[in-house]
Amino acid sequence: MSDVEKLREKFRAIHNINHASQYLSWDEAVMMPRGGGARRAESLAVLREVVHGMLVSEEVGDLLESVIKSGLTNEWDIANLRVIEHQRKRATAIPGDLVVALSRATSACEQEWREKRQENDWRAVAPLLSEVVNLTKQRASLLSDSLAMDPYDALLDEYEPGLSSEFIDPVFADLVNFLPNFVENVLTSQTTAPEFHGDYSPERQLDLARRLMTPIGFDFGRGRIDTSHHPFTCGEHTDTRITTRFGADDFLESMYAVLHETGHALYQQGLPSEWSDQPVGHSLGMMIHESQSLFVEMQICRGDAFLSFAKPLIEECLNVRGNGTSWIVENLARAVRRVERGKIRVEADETTYPLHVALRYRLEKAILNDQLSVADIPAAWNQAMRDSFGIDLNGDFRDGCMQDVHWYAGLIGYFPCYTLGALTAAQLYQALLREVPDIEVDIAAGRFHRVLNWQRENIHSRGQLTPSFELIESVTGSPLGSQAFIDHVSARYGSTT
Amino acid sequence: MSDVEKLREKFRAIHNINHASQYLSWDEAVMMPRGGGARRAESLAVLREVVHGMLVSEEVGDLLESVIKSGLTNEWDIANLRVIEHQRKRATAIPGDLVVALSRATSACEQEWREKRQENDWRAVAPLLSEVVNLTKQRASLLSDSLAMDPYDALLDEYEPGLSSEFIDPVFADLVNFLPNFVENVLTSQTTAPEFHGDYSPERQLDLARRLMTPIGFDFGRGRIDTSHHPFTCGEHTDTRITTRFGADDFLESMYAVLHETGHALYQQGLPSEWSDQPVGHSLGMMIHESQSLFVEMQICRGDAFLSFAKPLIEECLNVRGNGTSWIVENLARAVRRVERGKIRVEADETTYPLHVALRYRLEKAILNDQLSVADIPAAWNQAMRDSFGIDLNGDFRDGCMQDVHWYAGLIGYFPCYTLGALTAAQLYQALLREVPDIEVDIAAGRFHRVLNWQRENIHSRGQLTPSFELIESVTGSPLGSQAFIDHVSARYGSTT
Repeated sequence: MSDVEKLREKFRAIHNINHASQYLSWDEAVMMPRGGGARRAESLAVLREVVHGMLVSEEVGDLLESVIKSGLTNEWDIANLRVIEHQRKRATAIPGDLVVALSRATSACEQEWREKRQENDWRAVAPLLSEVVNLTKQRASLLSDSLAMDPYDALLDEYEPGLSSEFIDPVFADLVNFLPNFVENVLTSQTTAPEFHGDYSPERQLDLARRLMTPIGFDFGRGRIDTSHHPFTCGEHTDTRITTRFGADDFLESMYAVLHETGHALYQQGLPSEWSDQPVGHSLGMMIHESQSLFVEMQICRGDAFLSFAKPLIEECLNVRGNGTSWIVENLARAVRRVERGKIRVEADETTYPLHVALRYRLEKAILNDQLSVADIPAAWNQAMRDSFGIDLNGDFRDGCMQDVHWYAGLIGYFPCYTLGALTAAQLYQALLREVPDIEVDIAAGRFHRVLNWQRENIHSRGQLTPSFELIESVTGSPLGSQAFIDHVSARYGSTT
Repeated sequence: MSDVEKLREKFRAIHNINHASQYLSWDEAVMMPRGGGARRAESLAVLREVVHGMLVSEEVGDLLESVIKSGLTNEWDIANLRVIEHQRKRATAIPGDLVVALSRATSACEQEWREKRQENDWRAVAPLLSEVVNLTKQRASLLSDSLAMDPYDALLDEYEPGLSSEFIDPVFADLVNFLPNFVENVLTSQTTAPEFHGDYSPERQLDLARRLMTPIGFDFGRGRIDTSHHPFTCGEHTDTRITTRFGADDFLESMYAVLHETGHALYQQGLPSEWSDQPVGHSLGMMIHESQSLFVEMQICRGDAFLSFAKPLIEECLNVRGNGTSWIVENLARAVRRVERGKIRVEADETTYPLHVALRYRLEKAILNDQLSVADIPAAWNQAMRDSFGIDLNGDFRDGCMQDVHWYAGLIGYFPCYTLGALTAAQLYQALLREVPDIEVDIAAGRFHRVLNWQRENIHSRGQLTPSFELIESVTGSPLGSQAFIDHVSARYGSTT
């Protein structure tokens, strides 16, 4: 066996152990009874320790060195090596003890958050979050030393390799300059939302979900849908699982959560089978992942073409009616594209969403740079909600700083990927329209294969062959920026009546 | 850290990785879409390889030697050491490659069996079973050399340490002598089974299951119930999961599968919290595990006392009625204790069940001793069904030699535990009746805490402190034998009218 093959063998084993962690985490969020939490946390910590041990081992180091020296020529091998080196560099910066401590702390904190959020009990979860934040700061500082980058950038680089504050700051500045006035104008001009009624039982909403997911391209032979506290997607290309939650009063929130997660799932299911157990065969960073979910949810599924396809299905599954004659596509579009300054990120429309993310970006940078303590998060959050949204939270932690799992799960540095994903999705959809100008005829007819083929060819099937920023530029013809997104919301919401 | 503590630390890590394998196997049987099979098999193989590597490591060897030399005095430590030595001895006999090969082969074979059984397609699964059998023979032969025991005994010892053919042969001979005539007499004297009707939808059957499991002692905060192809129990004391399957025409099969698995689950949930991550804190072998399931299913739940408690619940949940006035406890008892020479082990009554097991015991010994090839299993099975049950299978593999998952999952040497468990359960129930003569008054009233406390105190809470055969003798006052079981069936079925 050559050293390249031996190195692949090592990463195959790592992949197989990460497989275990991934589905155990799914099980924890979706299936596990509460009693199992402590043991599950220990199991995940050991699995992460084993993987970390393999990544930092002398054996992998020697193989890597030998493979680099050998001068690879195959494109896949070179790309695989790029990702392997990135993983190894990050792993060797962190001692195994810290990996275990972080795994335990985030498991404990996330489990507590899941329960205490319901009870609006910030005080119960704050000490656990402090522990997560302290350990994350240690991690960021070690990574910063080793990778010679700013500590917060070292965290960003975990979720999207190469991403930095230097890139984010001007892009977010564009949005924070443009959006508040734009939103104000939309709010003044949009008409009252229509009211719909129907049977929103979980069984019927699940039926609708399946009947939307299937034509879009989700393969139920290689995936499933369940419910969980917070919608998410998990799993590999042969077994991709999404979750949602079903509200009793409204079907749109769950339906769009499903469509969002379906976008993530299509990416996973479309990854190349070849080398599925090698780093190059995995998905790119979370910016690209979010671009795939938002491409489906926002670009495709909130457009008129999709709504004229979806309306009869919704009617059939949920028996939806409006008041009088209000159950028409135009009114469905009004509801689906309603702009609102709300408390909750995951329920936000696409024009206010980036402001939610900018808020979190600002706060998490401050947390990491010791300018904001965990104890002061609620006050800072509430102040920001007043400033940016004119909302007074009045002691509401549940839908304030406790609304998102991310920090409690140790995912500091993740939030910017949502908005960068939205910008990417807008750029990608522009590119698709240039290449296939009549694509919306297909969508209106419920034929999604040309959309899916385009995604498959340009993004999904490529795995990590090309780094994210390069890929965006090569597929769309421009480096990632804010213009396509601003054009998109201007076109879609500027003419709201 | 002392060497004893270091050794515990190693087995804590092993436990945490086995935790992963365990819940991934549950997921595979209950949740996983079919597409995920190949990757899941690889992941389980790697996890088993990692555990095997830890068990056979020099480090564990040295620690074990040092701990043995140190002369432990604490009862728990001594018992823990006994179990650790047993595991280590078995692990070192087998090379890691064989562990991986067996894990892959059994995953592939079990996955194929699950699909092909439905299609009655023996030919599709036979080559995969041959591979499992060949690898199991290699394993048995290596264990035989290393442990100085007969190859088949070396497999029995996996499921119940210390169990041997020498012990089984005379006990099974008692049963095979006694039961056929006994069954014949019961069949001649029992009256026609009454017919019941009700709403047997899965939702209602699940409701009944939960309402029976809860008073018996199942803690849903530390467990769950789902459906799967073959009922089973899995999980630790803080997260114990049972499965069943719901038939459309009959509620009793599923109800008793639930009660059986609940017996297993009570054992798991009752294991000592202290040292839950150490071998001594785990359950004893499968003979004792089956004794706990059969204690609940057969001894308790097929008795009149339980039936008078369960009847109104069944009525309420499933809206059961009989023809005319036939929905009475006496008729429910007739249905629950109906004796029948059937094709299927898991549906067999307790008088014919040991004959099903004796058949499998005979065949699997022959397979292992090269007296029966995989290709000849169907013919041998059909012949045995004709001889022992007077049943002609006529090309029915599904409910013939494909009915049980065991061999396909590599569990050769497991079957005897069912019948030895039944004998143990009978002895245990005799002991309970001697100690608490009015226990059936409790059961009839749906008060199960005195039963559960007795199980907890004598069996569950003891983990592996005392080896199985010693434990049976110490709790019941006699070594394990066939008499209590023969007395039990004679009393329960001898007077059938």
